[in-house]
Amino acid sequence: MEVEVKFKADKDIEDRIRSMAELVCEKEEIDLYFNSPVRDFRKSDEALRIRKDSEGVKITYKGPKIDPETKTREEIEIRVDNYEKAVELLKRLGFVPVREVAKRRRIYRLENVTICFDEVKELGMFVEIEIKSEDLESAKRKIFEIARQLGFDPAKSIRKSYLELLEDSDKEINRGARN
Amino acid sequence: MEVEVKFKADKDIEDRIRSMAELVCEKEEIDLYFNSPVRDFRKSDEALRIRKDSEGVKITYKGPKIDPETKTREEIEIRVDNYEKAVELLKRLGFVPVREVAKRRRIYRLENVTICFDEVKELGMFVEIEIKSEDLESAKRKIFEIARQLGFDPAKSIRKSYLELLEDSDKEINRGARN
Repeated sequence: MEVEVKFKADKDIEDRIRSMAELVCEKEEIDLYFNSPVRDFRKSDEALRIRKDSEGVKITYKGPKIDPETKTREEIEIRVDNYEKAVELLKRLGFVPVREVAKRRRIYRLENVTICFDEVKELGMFVEIEIKSEDLESAKRKIFEIARQLGFDPAKSIRKSYLELLEDSDKEINRGARN
Repeated sequence: MEVEVKFKADKDIEDRIRSMAELVCEKEEIDLYFNSPVRDFRKSDEALRIRKDSEGVKITYKGPKIDPETKTREEIEIRVDNYEKAVELLKRLGFVPVREVAKRRRIYRLENVTICFDEVKELGMFVEIEIKSEDLESAKRKIFEIARQLGFDPAKSIRKSYLELLEDSDKEINRGARN
């Protein structure tokens, strides 16, 4: 399980992250999200994406969120050898490309915790704090402790994915255009 | 495109293959076939499988056959890093495991032609002759020429997949059991 929280951030936050955690890598991640022909993943709270970055290509399925305070969910991920063929394969199986999410991500590590400083195209800066663990409660305690140390209010954690935030922002723009 | 014909074979055929083509490798292939939640792949003449062999794991989609004399069809194939996770991913996306097909395959090469001598569990020996090409007619000419050299009658080419042959044989067995 991927136990994870996300917060809206600004540039200063990254200095604080740098002072407590170690930079592991920096990369551009391009994610292409798909919807299912069987059930609307927006409603079932699932996600399917192909990610392309400097390390290669991965297909990831995310199950529904299982916790009210965090973005915690089951994740199944496989590495694949070819982006274009993976996209074509999913399309032939009936999956529909929905939207691309592009970001520059710097990944920091603090013991078993991963802290990502993300600059997301069209959305701005965010911090994600994550532990891979089957022990939800203890992982949450640790994650919220680090969030507080970075100056975040746990009550302001964002449960929406970048995809959902982008879709919300599209709606805002359309509403603005109609007014 | 995978331009391909298949014939029922016996042990002697392999000597003839060996005399004209070069052995490339021998391996056990375990294929797990899936059906789709959207349309019955038996009826749409499509196939989705995960193959596990000594070279690794691959997910393959095969489109409907496009030629009345051969098994020619479009094929999209990606290599993945983990068999169990790939199975789990497809299951979560709604695909249903149908059946495993296991065979020992010896792969021979003659110029751009691949000749496989297959010993398929529960089905027996077969030869598949294949060219990857976008030029269907010239590929077919070459394939049938080699088939004739090996002593096969092109009119006896088998268009059914091993999965379909196994399902036919299941039906036979059930019919026998009922009588």
